[in-house]
Amino acid sequence: MTDDRIYHVDGDLVPASEATVSVDDRGFRYGDAAFETLRAYGGTIFAWDAHRERLERTCEALSLEHGLSAADLRERIDETLAANDLADAYVRLSITRGVQPGKLTPRPEVDPTVVIYVKPLPRGGLAGDPVWDGPATVETVETRRVPNEAVPAAAKTHNYLNGILARAELGDDADEGDDADEALMCDLEGTVAEGATSNLFFVRGGELYTPTTDGPVLPGITRELVLELAHEARIPVRDGRYEPVDVLAADEAFLTNRTWELRPIAALDGESIGGGPVTDRLARLYDERVERTCYE
Amino acid sequence: MTDDRIYHVDGDLVPASEATVSVDDRGFRYGDAAFETLRAYGGTIFAWDAHRERLERTCEALSLEHGLSAADLRERIDETLAANDLADAYVRLSITRGVQPGKLTPRPEVDPTVVIYVKPLPRGGLAGDPVWDGPATVETVETRRVPNEAVPAAAKTHNYLNGILARAELGDDADEGDDADEALMCDLEGTVAEGATSNLFFVRGGELYTPTTDGPVLPGITRELVLELAHEARIPVRDGRYEPVDVLAADEAFLTNRTWELRPIAALDGESIGGGPVTDRLARLYDERVERTCYE
Repeated sequence: MTDDRIYHVDGDLVPASEATVSVDDRGFRYGDAAFETLRAYGGTIFAWDAHRERLERTCEALSLEHGLSAADLRERIDETLAANDLADAYVRLSITRGVQPGKLTPRPEVDPTVVIYVKPLPRGGLAGDPVWDGPATVETVETRRVPNEAVPAAAKTHNYLNGILARAELGDDADEGDDADEALMCDLEGTVAEGATSNLFFVRGGELYTPTTDGPVLPGITRELVLELAHEARIPVRDGRYEPVDVLAADEAFLTNRTWELRPIAALDGESIGGGPVTDRLARLYDERVERTCYE
Repeated sequence: MTDDRIYHVDGDLVPASEATVSVDDRGFRYGDAAFETLRAYGGTIFAWDAHRERLERTCEALSLEHGLSAADLRERIDETLAANDLADAYVRLSITRGVQPGKLTPRPEVDPTVVIYVKPLPRGGLAGDPVWDGPATVETVETRRVPNEAVPAAAKTHNYLNGILARAELGDDADEGDDADEALMCDLEGTVAEGATSNLFFVRGGELYTPTTDGPVLPGITRELVLELAHEARIPVRDGRYEPVDVLAADEAFLTNRTWELRPIAALDGESIGGGPVTDRLARLYDERVERTCYE
C-alpha cells in the first residue's frame, strides 16, 4: 500500500516510496520537529483549530518559528488528501527546523521541512467502525515519562524514544503470549501519567477520572473533547493524581487518541477491567460529534 | 562546503546534498536511532573500540538489533574518509531502526539505515590546533537533564531536544551580547550533570572533580580518557554529586567531548574560572595520546 500513496514533502506531492528528507535535516539528526496526528472524516479534518493551536504551542516550546500560516498548512493537507483520493484518513503533519549551519544550537532563521503523511482509515462517526480490533490489553511498564522540567509533555515532537522504550518492554515476556497493545507509563513518583500514545480515563462510581496535565501528560485533543462531552452529559469529572491500583479498582477504563478515538481497556496487568455504560455513552457522543461536524 | 562532501547512506557513497532518508524511517519519525561522534586523526579513527562498544550499549538500550558487524561499520567509515580525501575529520555514525510496518512499537526484524557524515577538522595531537576559537563561556540553564528512568543517559540517540531546549535558553537574553557556547544542565535535584554536548570537569586544591555517571550523565569517551590520564599522572580524581556553586568555586574548569577534546571554561554564569596547570597538563597528555596512537 505504501507504494501507491502520495505524501507532501517540502511543498511537493511525491510518491511515498520516494519521500525523503536530507540526512542533515535537524528533524533527522535530533528529532528537532513538531507534529500532529489528525483524522479526516468524509474529507473534513476533525478539530482542525485545536490541532493548529497545539502545533503552535509545540513550536513555541521548541522556539521553532517556521513562518508558515495555518491556511498554508491546511492547504497542503487538503492537497494531499485530494491527491490520494482519500476522504477518511489518518493524517500526520510534521514540521522540522530544517537544515541549519552549525551544530546543536538552534538558529532563529528557519527553513522548515513540512511533511504530510496520509493513510486510509475506515469511516468514522455513527455509521463507522473503530480502527482497532478490540479493547486494548495494557501493561504498566518501568520506563517513566520524561518530566516537564526536561522536555515539556505538552510539546508533541519527534523525540519519541521514551514511548518506544515503554512499548519495547511489552515484548519482554514471550511466555505471556501476544504482546499488550499499550504501555501505561507513570511519572517518576509512580503516579499514572498516560499510555505511550494515548491518554487514560477510568470510571468509578459513575465518575470519570483522568490524570491531570499538571504532570507529564500530553494534553490530548481527544482527551479534551471527552472531558467536554462528559461535562455536557453531566458526568462528574475528576482530573488528579492516581496510582495504578486506582485504575485496577475501576469499573471501566478506556484510552483515547486521535486515531483510536475511545478504546476500552480489556485488561491492565492481566486484571480484567473493560468498558461499560459510561464508556459506551461517551463513545456514542464522540461519534455523534464526528457525524455532525464532518458527515452532515 | 556541504556540496563537495560525500556521505555514506544505506551502503552507498552519495554527495551530501543528495543524502537523504525516507520520511518513514523511524530515525526521522521518532528519533529512533543510535549515533557516535568520532574523530579521525591522520586517517585513523581515535578510540574506535570504545566507540563501537558504546554504540553497542546504546543499541542494547534501544533493543535495536541492527545485525551489522563492527568491521562493516568501520569499513563504511574508512570508505567515506577515503572518498572525501580526509585524514583529519569529524565523523558521525548513525544507525536507525529503519522503516518498519506498524507504528510506535518497535519490531525485532530491523533493516537499519546507516548514515556516515564527515567534515574536515584541523590536525590534532601535539602539532595540532583546537577546533574551538577560545575557552568556553557557559551558563547554567533551567532545562533539566532527562532522568535515566525515562531514557538512559548512557544511550547516545537522535532524541536531542533536551539539549536543544537547553541551548535555546542561551539566546534568551539578547542584551548580554554574544550567546554562551554551552549550557550547563542539572538533574531534577539541581545537581550538576553535564553540558548539552559535553562532560564537565573542575579542579579544586589540585584535585579533579567530575559529576558521576550514576546521574543523568553520558559516559563520554573523552571523559573516560581524561580520567585515565589523570590516574596515570597521579592527579587525584573524585566523581560525585556537585552543585553549580562548587563549580563556581573551582580553581579551573573545562569541558570535554570528542570534537572539542578538552576546552577550558572561561566563565560560568558571568564568573571567571578559566583553565590552569591541571587542565593544561591533561590537555597535553591527551595530545600526546592522540599523537602516539594516530600520527606515529
